[in-house]
Amino acid sequence: MVEYRPEVLDRVFAAVADPTRRAILAALAEKPATIGAIAEPFPVSLNAISKHVMVLERAGLIRREIVGREHRCRFKPAPLREASAWLEHYRRFWDVRLDALERHILAKKQRKNDG
Amino acid sequence: MVEYRPEVLDRVFAAVADPTRRAILAALAEKPATIGAIAEPFPVSLNAISKHVMVLERAGLIRREIVGREHRCRFKPAPLREASAWLEHYRRFWDVRLDALERHILAKKQRKNDG
Repeated sequence: MVEYRPEVLDRVFAAVADPTRRAILAALAEKPATIGAIAEPFPVSLNAISKHVMVLERAGLIRREIVGREHRCRFKPAPLREASAWLEHYRRFWDVRLDALERHILAKKQRKNDG
Repeated sequence: MVEYRPEVLDRVFAAVADPTRRAILAALAEKPATIGAIAEPFPVSLNAISKHVMVLERAGLIRREIVGREHRCRFKPAPLREASAWLEHYRRFWDVRLDALERHILAKKQRKNDG
């Protein structure tokens, strides 16, 4: 069993629980961008986008590079690995149960056919 | 590309962004339980646990069955599939980039050896 760090899971899941923040990540996954360029397609203030970027930064999903007067943001997917592993563990857990149920039903059917 | 439903991702990610809610899901993944039994190991009020259960219920991760005076809760992992697919898409996206980078470096090395 993987050792999950609660604070990493808390921050990553909270960060991706917002549609604007997911859209920002999707854009940055294509290419790095300045805060201004990130904000452009969104009908909200630059300040609101700046706050979303800070949440993503604290979750470790964005790295900000300051070049002169520009803040350039880059997508850092590493923390997604732990969050993804947690979700997969519980998703798969269920698949295993369904498999067991299927085997149980098939075995029952077999016994019925044999009997 | 999978079609992600923003409201499902919002609710599931927000639901699992809390350590108590993740612990509740982990317990219910083992076996269904009443709200009272769920609350027992936690040093918080039954009311607080009840609120956490409601958040999980709204995210579709728990189904509540009312049998007489008992509220029995059951883990429903189906919504995790969509959330997991979203995370995996961005996690893998990065692996693809790393592979491309590795190929680029190897090709460069090869050209150097050939030259």
